[in-house]
Amino acid sequence: MDVISVIRTKRDRGELSPEQIDWVIDAYTRGVVADEQMSALAMAILLNGMNRTEIARWTAAMIASGERMNFDALSRPTADKHSTGGVGDKITLPLAPLVAACGAAVPQLSGRGLGHTGGTLDKLESIPGWRALLSNEEMLNVLDTTGAVICAAGDGLAPADKKLYALRDVTGTVEAIPLIASSIMSKKIAEGTGSLVLDVKVGTGAFMKTIEDARELASTMVALGTDSGVKTVALLTDMSTPLGLTAGNALEVRESVEVLAGGGPQDVVDLTLALAREMLDAAGIKDADPEKALADGSAMDVWRRMIAAQGGDPDATLPVAREQHVVTAPQSGVLTRLDAYDIGVAAWRLGAGRARKEDPVQAGAGVELHAKPGDTVTAGQPLLTLHTDTPEKFEYALQTLGGSYDIAPAGTSFTANPIVLDRIA
Amino acid sequence: MDVISVIRTKRDRGELSPEQIDWVIDAYTRGVVADEQMSALAMAILLNGMNRTEIARWTAAMIASGERMNFDALSRPTADKHSTGGVGDKITLPLAPLVAACGAAVPQLSGRGLGHTGGTLDKLESIPGWRALLSNEEMLNVLDTTGAVICAAGDGLAPADKKLYALRDVTGTVEAIPLIASSIMSKKIAEGTGSLVLDVKVGTGAFMKTIEDARELASTMVALGTDSGVKTVALLTDMSTPLGLTAGNALEVRESVEVLAGGGPQDVVDLTLALAREMLDAAGIKDADPEKALADGSAMDVWRRMIAAQGGDPDATLPVAREQHVVTAPQSGVLTRLDAYDIGVAAWRLGAGRARKEDPVQAGAGVELHAKPGDTVTAGQPLLTLHTDTPEKFEYALQTLGGSYDIAPAGTSFTANPIVLDRIA
Repeated sequence: MDVISVIRTKRDRGELSPEQIDWVIDAYTRGVVADEQMSALAMAILLNGMNRTEIARWTAAMIASGERMNFDALSRPTADKHSTGGVGDKITLPLAPLVAACGAAVPQLSGRGLGHTGGTLDKLESIPGWRALLSNEEMLNVLDTTGAVICAAGDGLAPADKKLYALRDVTGTVEAIPLIASSIMSKKIAEGTGSLVLDVKVGTGAFMKTIEDARELASTMVALGTDSGVKTVALLTDMSTPLGLTAGNALEVRESVEVLAGGGPQDVVDLTLALAREMLDAAGIKDADPEKALADGSAMDVWRRMIAAQGGDPDATLPVAREQHVVTAPQSGVLTRLDAYDIGVAAWRLGAGRARKEDPVQAGAGVELHAKPGDTVTAGQPLLTLHTDTPEKFEYALQTLGGSYDIAPAGTSFTANPIVLDRIA
Repeated sequence: MDVISVIRTKRDRGELSPEQIDWVIDAYTRGVVADEQMSALAMAILLNGMNRTEIARWTAAMIASGERMNFDALSRPTADKHSTGGVGDKITLPLAPLVAACGAAVPQLSGRGLGHTGGTLDKLESIPGWRALLSNEEMLNVLDTTGAVICAAGDGLAPADKKLYALRDVTGTVEAIPLIASSIMSKKIAEGTGSLVLDVKVGTGAFMKTIEDARELASTMVALGTDSGVKTVALLTDMSTPLGLTAGNALEVRESVEVLAGGGPQDVVDLTLALAREMLDAAGIKDADPEKALADGSAMDVWRRMIAAQGGDPDATLPVAREQHVVTAPQSGVLTRLDAYDIGVAAWRLGAGRARKEDPVQAGAGVELHAKPGDTVTAGQPLLTLHTDTPEKFEYALQTLGGSYDIAPAGTSFTANPIVLDRIA
């Protein structure tokens, strides 16, 4: 087996054999196949695709590169959720404790943000004392005692994916559906969850800009999960505008706590409940009432225990950015568009995200929205508040916001996208 | 400027801007763009192409990465030849002294072989004492005093190409017409020749397997040369069967000397004369008679002076391989096919070529042909003689020869391909 023949097979639109896939993933993990060879193969895969058989084998080979976890010892069924990433997507924060309050065990191995979408761990790290890094034993212990855990994935799960993801990130090969699907699913299958609900975002603020691409990614992942014995369902959800009214780390924690307290923006509540119902259904829990668990404080109780179990103080005051800048509506009318991508980039430029994985993030930085598409606005009213500790970044953030919204004359009729666009099972 | 946006442009079938091209070539040469990033870009170029404007800029940027030579001080017009490489392609050896004998200065900066096609320098190094490595001064001096020089290209010419070629070689991205064309032409334009004749090989033993691909490569290179002020002509020539009756280093030197002595196989003589006429015409030399220069020994005189000027002994006995193995014709009839690629691979496996650029080659190894397509053969007569110093390689070489020839019943009519298939100017 040699790597050039593997690259040529895909370059020339052939199908990679199981032996070629097993060999190239193993050899890359061991450093026998060099980065420049794998990146050429990744570009060939991006441009020429892989079929379902190839993707399944590729995923299996990445799983085989590391350890597999097992939640069989838990007394509850496990249900996991994965989002492909969006702007203001804090859903994991209220969702994990909510589903745990309804009787499932929710292991959420999460990541940090890179680029314009925030990372769940970055958000939770704005809570004083909270720790993302847990040993496998600690993780299982938090999960067993509180019903939910949100922490960093260990290095042992799918190391091939870790190495390949870092490579794709610097070689323009992130946006390949076969590679996105196998990256997500190798980690989730290795993690050992019994059921999985995928939140596949569609729109300007998402990786998948079109419903067709999102549907292809979703059905690829559902097939991968199902074939590996994980009950898998995907919701395609709208990411044309930010979720909720905040994008940024501490800003999103605050909003999540509002949802757990029974309030919060309607779209965040709706999506949290939709995903909770899917997770509970996939986990085989029939008689739960997640709406009630939000209303009666039982989800909030799990949240507080879960945060405390990882060293966080659920009552601590969250960090606030040192400086604010308000963007006002230039005219009166109906807000018909508020672009998710532009808001995400602005939040990132203000310090909420990072350009390189070594960069720190600002806990308080981000963008607060004072109106959402469909709302009536008055000239001069606050539209956005920008938050940062580094006010010299305001101008840089404002550059991206010039064309980020449309205001139509008052009385223009407007129908917002439903939050859930499709369901694939 | 950042490399991911450059990669994305080509990945998404866009046109690279002049600024993107200049930047990425310079940054890659300086090590700011990493190998894994350039290989992803090379694969995107291979699969999505570059237009003429992009290829011209890419070539110019590679030229600008190094020094340019200048032959203006010579009293004769310069004419250079480049072959895209084939099996038994020893043409440079008789051609350079022949064209010099007719009044042009012929600077042949050549390479070593990699894979199944031999390298001109490897062939000449089978002559005891001959040195491929010359300083720029030595090179100009040999050229000025003998009229021709064949030597290794200096490190100063198009260093970006040197680095990129090594990368393409290990990443399955050699076979991209825009990259092949810019690689060849950047070196030739930087070298400073006034005119250039391209021998673009077509057939199983060549990079270009089809006449369409060869035509595209040839016209791309002719346009690049012409636009840079180099008078450039291309001949498309047949490489479905080996050139002449030998493939191997010393074997090919011996055959070249036969041609210079007024003999040699007809196809080698024909192609040498066709290329000589094109070179002389491109150099503006009207009244030369290359056929006469072969017959009267004047080309041989230049050869002897040229070899001696680089430390070689033109009268030395050439190395002979320690072991021979004869392949005989299994039946009588007309030889209708003798595959160039298979013979090239056999010669390579016998030790005439190298798998990695650090490997040594055997001077005496190779394949000798006793018949060519169109010849009548008798069952049991020698068809091929294999030569090697490492007889344990015979079996490995024979593996590739099983299906390498066809013998049709006696009397079958057969028309050989003409050696020159097309001309592009």
